[in-house]
Formats: sequence, C-alpha cells, structure tokens
Amino acid sequence: MIFQQENSFEVKGKIEKSLVAILPIGAVEAHGPHLPLGTDNFLAERLAERVAEKTGAYVLPTLPYGQVWSLKNFPGSINISNESLISFIYDMGVSLYEQGFRVFAIINGHLGNAVAMKEAARKLYAQYPDFKILYLFYPGVKKVTEEVREAKSVHSTYFHACEIETSYMLYLAEEYVDMSKALPEDPQIPMSADVTPTPWEAFTSTAVLGNATLATKEKGEKIIEIAIENMIKLIEGAKRGFKKAE
Amino acid sequence: MIFQQENSFEVKGKIEKSLVAILPIGAVEAHGPHLPLGTDNFLAERLAERVAEKTGAYVLPTLPYGQVWSLKNFPGSINISNESLISFIYDMGVSLYEQGFRVFAIINGHLGNAVAMKEAARKLYAQYPDFKILYLFYPGVKKVTEEVREAKSVHSTYFHACEIETSYMLYLAEEYVDMSKALPEDPQIPMSADVTPTPWEAFTSTAVLGNATLATKEKGEKIIEIAIENMIKLIEGAKRGFKKAE
Amino acid sequence: MIFQQENSFEVKGKIEKSLVAILPIGAVEAHGPHLPLGTDNFLAERLAERVAEKTGAYVLPTLPYGQVWSLKNFPGSINISNESLISFIYDMGVSLYEQGFRVFAIINGHLGNAVAMKEAARKLYAQYPDFKILYLFYPGVKKVTEEVREAKSVHSTYFHACEIETSYMLYLAEEYVDMSKALPEDPQIPMSADVTPTPWEAFTSTAVLGNATLATKEKGEKIIEIAIENMIKLIEGAKRGFKKAE
Amino acid sequence: MIFQQENSFEVKGKIEKSLVAILPIGAVEAHGPHLPLGTDNFLAERLAERVAEKTGAYVLPTLPYGQVWSLKNFPGSINISNESLISFIYDMGVSLYEQGFRVFAIINGHLGNAVAMKEAARKLYAQYPDFKILYLFYPGVKKVTEEVREAKSVHSTYFHACEIETSYMLYLAEEYVDMSKALPEDPQIPMSADVTPTPWEAFTSTAVLGNATLATKEKGEKIIEIAIENMIKLIEGAKRGFKKAE
Amino acid sequence: MIFQQENSFEVKGKIEKSLVAILPIGAVEAHGPHLPLGTDNFLAERLAERVAEKTGAYVLPTLPYGQVWSLKNFPGSINISNESLISFIYDMGVSLYEQGFRVFAIINGHLGNAVAMKEAARKLYAQYPDFKILYLFYPGVKKVTEEVREAKSVHSTYFHACEIETSYMLYLAEEYVDMSKALPEDPQIPMSADVTPTPWEAFTSTAVLGNATLATKEKGEKIIEIAIENMIKLIEGAKRGFKKAE
Amino acid sequence: MIFQQENSFEVKGKIEKSLVAILPIGAVEAHGPHLPLGTDNFLAERLAERVAEKTGAYVLPTLPYGQVWSLKNFPGSINISNESLISFIYDMGVSLYEQGFRVFAIINGHLGNAVAMKEAARKLYAQYPDFKILYLFYPGVKKVTEEVREAKSVHSTYFHACEIETSYMLYLAEEYVDMSKALPEDPQIPMSADVTPTPWEAFTSTAVLGNATLATKEKGEKIIEIAIENMIKLIEGAKRGFKKAE
Repeated sequence: MIFQQENSFEVKGKIEKSLVAILPIGAVEAHGPHLPLGTDNFLAERLAERVAEKTGAYVLPTLPYGQVWSLKNFPGSINISNESLISFIYDMGVSLYEQGFRVFAIINGHLGNAVAMKEAARKLYAQYPDFKILYLFYPGVKKVTEEVREAKSVHSTYFHACEIETSYMLYLAEEYVDMSKALPEDPQIPMSADVTPTPWEAFTSTAVLGNATLATKEKGEKIIEIAIENMIKLIEGAKRGFKKAE
Repeated sequence: MIFQQENSFEVKGKIEKSLVAILPIGAVEAHGPHLPLGTDNFLAERLAERVAEKTGAYVLPTLPYGQVWSLKNFPGSINISNESLISFIYDMGVSLYEQGFRVFAIINGHLGNAVAMKEAARKLYAQYPDFKILYLFYPGVKKVTEEVREAKSVHSTYFHACEIETSYMLYLAEEYVDMSKALPEDPQIPMSADVTPTPWEAFTSTAVLGNATLATKEKGEKIIEIAIENMIKLIEGAKRGFKKAE
Repeated sequence: MIFQQENSFEVKGKIEKSLVAILPIGAVEAHGPHLPLGTDNFLAERLAERVAEKTGAYVLPTLPYGQVWSLKNFPGSINISNESLISFIYDMGVSLYEQGFRVFAIINGHLGNAVAMKEAARKLYAQYPDFKILYLFYPGVKKVTEEVREAKSVHSTYFHACEIETSYMLYLAEEYVDMSKALPEDPQIPMSADVTPTPWEAFTSTAVLGNATLATKEKGEKIIEIAIENMIKLIEGAKRGFKKAE
Repeated sequence: MIFQQENSFEVKGKIEKSLVAILPIGAVEAHGPHLPLGTDNFLAERLAERVAEKTGAYVLPTLPYGQVWSLKNFPGSINISNESLISFIYDMGVSLYEQGFRVFAIINGHLGNAVAMKEAARKLYAQYPDFKILYLFYPGVKKVTEEVREAKSVHSTYFHACEIETSYMLYLAEEYVDMSKALPEDPQIPMSADVTPTPWEAFTSTAVLGNATLATKEKGEKIIEIAIENMIKLIEGAKRGFKKAE
Repeated sequence: MIFQQENSFEVKGKIEKSLVAILPIGAVEAHGPHLPLGTDNFLAERLAERVAEKTGAYVLPTLPYGQVWSLKNFPGSINISNESLISFIYDMGVSLYEQGFRVFAIINGHLGNAVAMKEAARKLYAQYPDFKILYLFYPGVKKVTEEVREAKSVHSTYFHACEIETSYMLYLAEEYVDMSKALPEDPQIPMSADVTPTPWEAFTSTAVLGNATLATKEKGEKIIEIAIENMIKLIEGAKRGFKKAE
Repeated sequence: MIFQQENSFEVKGKIEKSLVAILPIGAVEAHGPHLPLGTDNFLAERLAERVAEKTGAYVLPTLPYGQVWSLKNFPGSINISNESLISFIYDMGVSLYEQGFRVFAIINGHLGNAVAMKEAARKLYAQYPDFKILYLFYPGVKKVTEEVREAKSVHSTYFHACEIETSYMLYLAEEYVDMSKALPEDPQIPMSADVTPTPWEAFTSTAVLGNATLATKEKGEKIIEIAIENMIKLIEGAKRGFKKAE
C-alpha cells in the first residue's frame, strides 16, 4: 500500500476501502556523530510501514523536512518555519479529503513538528468536521520509556540522539547507526531554556542530549512496539466512525 | 553523497567542498494506468542521483509533493498551492545558504512546479545575491525530443504520461512502468485551455496526453542523457564563480 | 463601450447584455531607445479597443503596471510583485462577477504578467465556477510570427522591443515609435538565463532583444490581425455558454 | 513629462533632475446619472497634469481602481480591498525610490483610497526615511468650499457626486458631465452610518449625496485652483530637502 | 455586568438577554507630563462602565494596546500595527457572534485605532450581516466641543493631551491627572503633516497638542455626557433590530 | 511600577533602570461554575504584581484575551487565533525593545497561549539577539504540585478549573471564587484527545478537569510561592547579562 506506486485507474476504489492515509514526517537535523541527519525521517518511515501493514492504510511519500529551530545552527540542519509547514500540511489535507480519505494519520519522527501538525489539523478539522487528522509522536510510551531507560532523562520533554532515540534507530534502522561513535553526554539544560528562546548550542556542542552509548536494540523494541500498538489502536478508532456510517 | 545519511560532525567540511545541494522535487499525480502516481518523484530522484555523481553535489531528500492544479480532480493527485510551495522552498534555501551551500539546484520532475520554483528562487536571490538557485526541468532537450518523437506533440508546452514521459520512465525507472496498460491517446486540447482555467478532465479522462504505446527505453535514453549533460554543465557553471573566488 | 464613461443608472442593463469585461494590462518598463516605457500599455489598450468593438465587450480602464522583475533595474521600470498583482486582479474579478459580468478577458501586453493573471484566474474560477476568466497574450500567433520574422528569434519564449514587438507598435501605436533610434541588437542569452534568476542586464544593456530595425507596420499587421481574430473567437466561445443558458 | 512616453535611454537623467513622480489614483464607482463611473479617475488625471506642469514632475499612468466599499453594491462599481491597494502602492514606491525619485506624490480623486495611501506611505517611509510620500486629496480647500457651497453639506467628511464634486468635474472634465440628469438629492445620513458598517444603499438609491443641480464650473474653479496651489506648495516643500542636499 | 466576572454556567442565558458586548479599547501612549501613558485606556474603561449601566451591556476586559504610529518614538508608547489590531478584533468578533452577542460596541479612547476598528468591523459585517459592530469615538460631540473649548483647536481632527482630553480625564479619571504639570502648548502643525508620514516629534516635544492648563472637570462633563448619551442611543438603535425579530 | 500610570516625561529614565517589562496575559474562558471567565487574567495579574515588586519590573496592562480553541464552544469563551496573538505580541516586543526594555517577561495564566508566546519570542529574538523574551507559565512547580495534590491528575499536561487552578485562585484572587459551586469532576480523557483535534465538549460538560472541591488556599500558596520564586530568579538571570554589560 505504497501510495505513489499505485496508478490513477485503480487507486480510487482502493482509497474508498482503505480510508486512511499515513504521512511520515521527519526532519533533516543534526543528531550527533553516530546518527545520520535523516534520523527522524528514517524512524517515521519505518514506523509508517509497520502501522500501515496492520491498518490497511496507504503510506504517502515522506515529508522529509521539519521545523528544527533549536538545532538550526548545527551543521546539516534544514529548518522549515511553522508557517510554511502548516500551509503545506493543510494543502495536503484538503487534497486527501477530496480524494476520499477520511483519516489522515501523520506519523512524526521529530518533536519540533508538533506545533505545525496540530495547527494544520485544527484548520482542516474546522473545514471538514468529518475528517480525522491524527498527529502521532510515539503515543503512550511514557511508562515503558521510564522502565527501560538507564540514564536519567536530561529534560522533561525533549529527547534527542540519546539512549532512547538511538535505541529506536537500532531497532528500526540499524544500518544507519554507528555505535562506535556514540557519545555518553550529560548536558546541563538550564531552567531558562524552557522559558526563553534558546538555540541548543547554548548547552550542547554535540546535539546529543543523553548517554547514547546505553542504547540497545532491545530497549528500542520495547518502546517502539508499544508506540506502534497505540498508533494502530488510534487509527482503528478513527476509522470506526466512518465504517459504522456505511 | 546522500545528505540525510551524513552525520553532523563530518558534514560541515564536506559542504564547504561540495557547495552544491540538489533537491529532487516531483509530485503525486495521476499518470494514466501504466505509470504510478509518483512518476515525477521517481524521475526527479533518478536524475538527481546521476547528476550528483558527476558534480560532487549532495542529494537532499526528495520533496515529493507539487502543484498539480490541472489534474487535482483525478484519482490520487495531491495538490500543493503555489504559495505553500514557494515558502517551503524559500525556507529550505535560507537554511542551505546558512549551512554553506552556494548552489541550490532543484531538479524538477513536474512542470507544474515551475512557477513556484522560479518565484522562490527570485526571493532567495534578492536576499543572497551570491547564492545560485537553479530550477531544472529537462533543460535543453527541445531539439532531441523533436528528433526522437514519433507521434505529434499534443501541446506546445505540456507533455504528460505520453510517448516522451513514458520513455523517460522506461529509461530511468522501468520497474514502475506497466507497458501492457499503455494507452494510445490523442486528446484534442482546445486553444481555450491555454487562456482560461481548464482542469484537464475537460479534454482527457485518462490523463495520458499522447500515444504512450510508442514509448521506448532508447528514446528515453537519448533525451535524458542530454538533459543530464546540460544539468551538469549548468551546475558546474554555477559553481565556477565560487571556486574562482577561493 | 468605454466602461468608465458609462453612468451607474444605465450600466446595469448594459452589463447584462454585454457579459464581457476587457481589462487591458501592461507595464511601465524599459523598451530601448525607440519605444516608450508604456509600450505594453499602449499595445494592450489598442488591442482591447479593437476586440471590444467586435465582441460588444466593455473596455475597463487599463491597469498600467505589471511584474517586470527581469528589467526592474533598467531606467524607468516600475515593478509590481506577483503577490500584489494577483490580489489586485482577484479583487477586480470579484467585483466584476458581482456586477453581472460573466467573462473577464484580460488583454495583456506584457509577458511578465502571465503568472499573476493565471494564478488570479484560478482563484476566481475556484470561487465562481461559472465565471470565465481569459488571460490573453497574442494568442495563436506562433506560426504567423515565424513566417514574418526575418531575424532569428533570440529566445524561445521572450521577445522584447525587437523586430516583432516594434512591428506591433508600428501597426497599433505608430505615434510612439522613433524608428531612427531602433537598434539591430543580437544579444547572446546564455542557457543559464532560463534556469536561474537572471536580471537582463546580464546579457543586454539596451533591453532590445533582437533587430528592431527590421520592424515594419506590415509585419505588425499580419500578426496582430491574427491575434485579434483569435481573441474574438475565444471571447465569443466563452460567452456562448452563458447565452445558451438564458 | 508623461512618464510612459519617455524612453529608457533618456529617462534616467531626467528623473534625477525632476525627483518627483505623481501618481493619479481614482476609482471606478457609481456617481449618479450625470457623472461617469470614472469621475474620480478623470479628476485625478486632470489635477495631476496641472500640478506636474508647475513642478517639473513626471505624471505616471493613472491607477484607475480604488477602494469603494461603501458603494460597491451600486451598478458599475469595482472594489479593491485595502490590503491589495496597500501592497500595490507599496511596490510602486519601492521601484520609484530605486529609480531615483525622492518625492512620490499621489494625487487622489477618491476619498475611499485615503486609508490605503496613508498605510502604504508609512510602510515606505519606514523603509526609506529620505523618501517623501505625499497623499493628496484636495488639500486645504475646507474654507473655500464652505464659501462657495450653496447647499448644506450632507455629511461632515463625505461628498459625492454632489454640488461640489460635480463642480470639480465641470471645471476639469466638463465633457463627461450631463447636467440635464443632475439630481437635487438631500439624503438623510443617520448618525449610525459613521459608527457601523453602512453600505450607502441604506440611505441613497442614487449615490448622489447632495444637490448636484447647484454645481457650476465657477465653483469648481475656485476650489480646484486652491487645491492645485496647495499641492504645488506641498510638492515644492518636499523637494526642497533634496535639492539642498545636492 | 463585568463579563470576566461571570461564570460559564450562567452567562449563556444572560448573553441572550443582553445581546450587547462592549469592548473598551485604548492605547499605551505618551500624553505629556500631566497625564499617564494609559490615558486612553482609563477613558475607554470609564465610558464603557457608564454606557453599559444604561444599556444592559456586558463590559469585556479592556484591550489596552492600540495603533500609536504618530507618537511611537515618544517615551512609553507601545505601538500595535493596523494588521495585528484588525485580526485581533476580528477574532474577538467571531467569538462574540458565536457566543450569541448581536451588538459588538467598541468604545475607543484613541483616535489612532479608528482605521483598524472600521476595517475589522467591515470584515465581520461581510461574514455576519446580522451582526452590528459599532466603533465609537466620542460620537456627536463636535458642536458641544466647539462651545466649551477656550483655546483654538490646533488641528481639525487630532486632539491630544490638550484642553479637551485633559478635561475628559478630569471628569472621568481625575485621580490620574496632575494638573500642576499641565502645559500651555500651542504647536504649529504644518499642512504637510496631513499629507505625508509625519511622526509627531516633527512639531512637538511634549506630545501635548494644545493648552492643557485650560482643562476643567466641567468642560469634560459637558462633552462626555453628550458622548455617553449618543453612545447609548446608538447601541439601543442597534439592539432594536434584534429585539423586534424575537 | 504600573506602566500605564507613568507619564512620558519620567518614564524614559525609569525604563533604562528597570530594563524589565512584565506582560500579564490570560484569557476569557469557561472555568466551570465556581470560577469566573477571567480566571486566567486574574491569576496572571496577581502573579505579575508580586513578581514586579521583587524585580523592579514594570507591569504592563494585561492582555486579557488568549487562544482558547479547546473550550471555544463553551459559554463565555472568546478565542484569539495563534496568528493574531503572535503578531500582537511581536508588535509589542518591537516597541518595548525600541523603548529601551531588554527583558520582556510574559507572565501567562493560560496554557493555550504557550504556542503563540514561544513563536512570537523566537521572531523577536531573531530580530534582536540581545533581547530576552521570557514566557512564564508557573515555572518549576511540577514537584511541589505532585506533593500537594490529593486527587490524581486527569491529564499529563492540562489542568483546568480543578483542585490545582482553584487553589491558585483561592490564594491569589479569593474574592472571585465561589467554593459552594465547586464540582468534584473526574472526566475520562481518551488517549485520542492528545492526537486529534478534540474540543473539550467531547469529554466534559462542565470544563472542570478534576476535583475542584479539594482546592485550598494553602495548596495554592505552596505552589504559587515556588512559581513566583522561580519567575524572579529567571528574570534576575535575564537581567544580569545587561547589567554586566554596563
């Protein structure tokens, strides 16, 4: 169910059956020496494939650029403003709705996209009240993450190129990880970083927010499998409304 | 030189050497029964790889959505407005320039993106006069195309899912083509289509603008090789200014 | 049928009969030493008068400023951004539709306006599907132009202050032409000019893109008469839909 | 000194000498049975010619559309939003400044344009502190108007197609006036019209806000001559700063 | 009837009865040495309370920032652009209408807000034709003001921190006035100030546009009582339409 | 140090000394039967006064409207879009910086404003790198809140009109609380509410997200005092940079 491999003659009926389009969205952003710039894209894509398989959803081509304000001054980062991202996703949503999709599930690999996804979703929802737009960023993994992590989290909401995200990569896209370069960082993030614009070079020179050497495929598996399970449930829940109506 | 596979620690120096970022841009759009919705993405990506190899350029992740107003009512098409596309490309350009790139070569697989690319390029150029932004859509192939084509062109500027584009696909991305479904269309495009908003359902029900059955890999090769050669020349020309300066 | 000379008491019924509003649009732009800055305005106005006469259309006051990015650094040019031009034309269209017009024919004397006209037309068409917006720039003259021209064209789409455009002026607005100053230019436009932002001072210091000394009234007549004929046909075709409905 | 009749080769030096560009701006708007839709354009143009003659200014082509919200539902009116008008005038100002003009005098024939002109002027002034943008709407005529008028004014700031404006037309553009159709209106404008959006059809069916039959060429002359004198003074004052600097 | 002191359980029914929301709007702006920066806010608030009492209207929390372009370079001024102000008021209006209000009376203490209020009102009116938006700035006080004032007005439309405005404050918010610091200014405002962007530092260093020492509570009372009376009438008039409908 | 009570003659020097402007920002929003619509405004204002006292900061007039999308359909809510809020706060920041302030501390009483504040802060920071913009929403109270709360939190990030917020009000603005109407709610918020646009009427009819009957002044005091202490520290930290520079 790779959308861009379908042809126009057959896709119409298949959309009506599937109802669900999944958009993987990530970013091009510095992720330390052991992870590639496209880490968030690889994660989003692999998650999308897994979720699509179980939900009969279409996977759309990845939107591989995101809002990376905090790390935009690090080598390799490409930053898209929230305004641009919001209108891009909004336009996509309009077409998807007009094409017959009723669930637009955005599987996100990069926290910085959260604001734009939510805002775009609200605009679409205002226009099409019977359109379910999901913005999914590892839903429901808080508890399991606390269980598997060995190093203390360096921040209450951010995690980046650390024990956790590196474990995700080891489980989902191991071929892009070079653990020999993983760093055991422990940056001190000042309280002010949460309340005033603070590019991350203020507290890290590596962009690694934690001890990446502690990452393992098994940790990744435990968290990711729960995230996938939750995403499937949320998408099935969203579909249910429309199926009933038929 | 796949940009998103690089890591942040090594990429800085490599950018300074390469200077050139290539963005493949295409669209998700109806292309008849024999070609996939992602045709323009596949073409742009394959072209980008070929051109990057010869120019030492980085290939950025593909921007896989474009402006498809004319075919937006056909099954499977996803339309991005010119406004959204312009700001998205503009934002990318700002980051690329700040990252040290001096040539931003957009390799385009979809004619409908032409307006947005040019407009974004002008905005970037106004802001960074020493930034070369190239928007490349099969440059310099007019003559060879006239030589290889057997069927008469149905329109002076459009070509779509026809003898020509199908030949491109046979040469660059054969695995996505199903020639057994190729149609020998010969739509009559009224003069008015060029002077008033005319969604293409007004003159075609297949989105195939020509005789796709005449497509061959060889025709594709002849045109594509010239396009690639021209793109390489244009990029090398653009680089030259900066190299001299060093 | 000069719209701004009508009075409000009588115009309503006349609009219902005529259905067609013609907007001449041009630019203030450098056109070499032998043609005035307002060349594109004079051409658009004279064409509009001729076409209106035959179609019972109203001629609106000329919008005398356009998008002249390429020549904006030449003395005398006044540049309007595409954004501004799009919203201006869009606003006009809304009023014209509400006033009862059903065909809005924009007769354009300046190629640089093409993008804005088309974009505005699409916005209006999305809002009023029964509104025909025509953007007309010498439609259907390709063949005759190739027949009459003596000098080779310097570019596949641009022509400017050259044999052709000067001939137009000699036929339509001779009083503004000073042939004694006409220049026999033959600028070499590099391939890059089509693929990267290139203000025209890069390849011409005169803004004359061709051999203006070859211009004659007769050449102008041949081309212009065909353009006018085609415009009339296109407008009559656009009107037909509405007349039938009555 | 008609700008669009100049050619690009000679205009540069002339701009440096003149420094002043005059833009006539009006509207297409209902003006009762005795005045044409283009009344405000004709007035602005004639005033501009007179003022230019005395100040060595260039007259730019008329911008013949304006903001006519109040009368937009009357037959023949064409309404431009403030947003569109602001960006259009702003764009013009940028080009005029870059071309070497230092005084941009907008001679306005339509009160509804006042907000847009002022806002555009402020934006330009913020960007170019040494650019004088004048927005001129019959400056300094309050006293003389009170002296010449016979009928009481129907409103403290509006006047429209009435004794006064018709007198202007009789003096400046008599050929467009049909006094045999002039109406002796005396509309009662409620206080609420000044404090809540009130399209004028709420208090007039003719768009004539006063007794047009009282109009005379002589009244027009008295007021207009003072307006012209004031405009000349204001433009000369604006020029003075720059001349001194040389 | 202080809106923000109501609770959500009871307010719905009360809105349906009241129908009227009053928004006091002012500015933070230099007002000379004897008046506080918040002068326009204090005036708007006190007026709103008085008017609400008589009309059964709800008083919304004050919007305490406005467009103060002319005085933005004076110590203490905080300037909001017209664009921002328009969208803010527009958003408020949308919510008020959806909440059941049918009259949105903006009581304004600062002339600079006039453009934004009117523009926002027109946008709201276009969207909700049965929504009455009033923008009220001391309506109908021209005559009484001329009667009470001793010093000649320094400008035909502006008044600022002068005999008149200080009198308003003495009557409505005496506790914020320090008459011992009142200045007897008599600035000469050049004619050009009305026709070209002119920050007020060009003609005053105090921001006091008149003889503030002549201010008295009695003068304030005379004018303000008439303003209040007129505002009540206008609001009652606006309400009447809706009451009838029930 | 109430900014709007200062006068323009004295404020300049005081700004230079103080350097800090505090903007209380809240919302008009449903808060159940026991709390007023202006709850978030009252909280922000009282906090601002307390913090200003200790930091020598100026308190600006409260911006009393915020983004209340989630509760916008509840009686009494007034919703401002993120776009409008961003530009409003941005404009304020520009003026504050130009007036000499170097720390702009926004004390927020309403979580829904978080996105707009952060986005506006980033825009200001991009323009003025030496401008510290703080967005403060009860910073650093997570631990103490967990200690004092008796009822389990109904959501990991939201709290609304519940044990906690009601305790804040009892401590800071007791006069607006009617504990006799407090409800012991325990809404079940589905996981989907975090990943798809979900107006709160989907899971609550009261807008009370928790057991408000458990609120006490003492609980409020414990949390609020820590929030205030943290805000003071953050502001003093922000000021330090500038003081050193002198």
